[in-house]
Amino acid sequence: MTKEELPGINALQSWKQVIGRFDKALAELSDEQMQKQVAPGRNRLFYLLGHLTAVHDRLFALLGVGERLHAELDEPFISKPDGAVADPVSASELRKAWAEVNSKLTAALEKFSAAEWVEKHTAVSDEDFATDPTRNRLAVVLSRTNHVSFHTGQMILAK
Amino acid sequence: MTKEELPGINALQSWKQVIGRFDKALAELSDEQMQKQVAPGRNRLFYLLGHLTAVHDRLFALLGVGERLHAELDEPFISKPDGAVADPVSASELRKAWAEVNSKLTAALEKFSAAEWVEKHTAVSDEDFATDPTRNRLAVVLSRTNHVSFHTGQMILAK
Repeated sequence: MTKEELPGINALQSWKQVIGRFDKALAELSDEQMQKQVAPGRNRLFYLLGHLTAVHDRLFALLGVGERLHAELDEPFISKPDGAVADPVSASELRKAWAEVNSKLTAALEKFSAAEWVEKHTAVSDEDFATDPTRNRLAVVLSRTNHVSFHTGQMILAK
Repeated sequence: MTKEELPGINALQSWKQVIGRFDKALAELSDEQMQKQVAPGRNRLFYLLGHLTAVHDRLFALLGVGERLHAELDEPFISKPDGAVADPVSASELRKAWAEVNSKLTAALEKFSAAEWVEKHTAVSDEDFATDPTRNRLAVVLSRTNHVSFHTGQMILAK
């Protein structure tokens, strides 16, 4: 690998490590435990997993790397707060969706060249990107990696 | 800025954003609230702040960017679990130490060139770094940024 390729590889390693830690905590939770709230009056772990799955599923379009897999998760887990609608899927279906989305996303990230990592994401216009080239794919992936870390910290408290 | 400089700038933005979010949550907590545990039987917020401060203070040596400021925080907040020793500083002193450490660290990160971001950190040998050049400063900063995110997720639950 060249020096220019290293930052993308580092970002990918960080992404994988953080998802690996979340997955480890998730694997230790039963489907029943997923109905627990992360703290009194807060979201259930089930909702948190649905939320992360929907947010990651939206990355396919945002990074321009293919079609999303689970558009049906947006309404219950992004538009609506926890408890607003009946759970649209079972815990095992949700675990499977989460794994599928991340597996496909990670495969796409592994293909990025150094130049592709710093290409613009699709939610920024050409004009805005010309002014601010930090609004790139790398920024999106770092942000979502932090987002998973944030919720992993909550998840391990509920065990 | 050049394309080669972008990843380091993105990493720095992510670091600043995550610390900014933590600081916002911290500013909303009184010194009394910092004595609360993040969850029943878990660490106090006070300990969590001490832990993060000590871990960040160790980054000066790990990144090779100067002398640490608060070696006295290692024992109470890294070696020992919460409650093992009397709190060595007041809440306001700890808030000040946290701000000082991050301010000095961020100033050092802002000076890194693209090449300096992917130089080895000081806890890896030349031989090991030759085999695995991902063990660089960028990897350390991404890891610590995720670490702050992890604890921010816990902190906001205690409010």
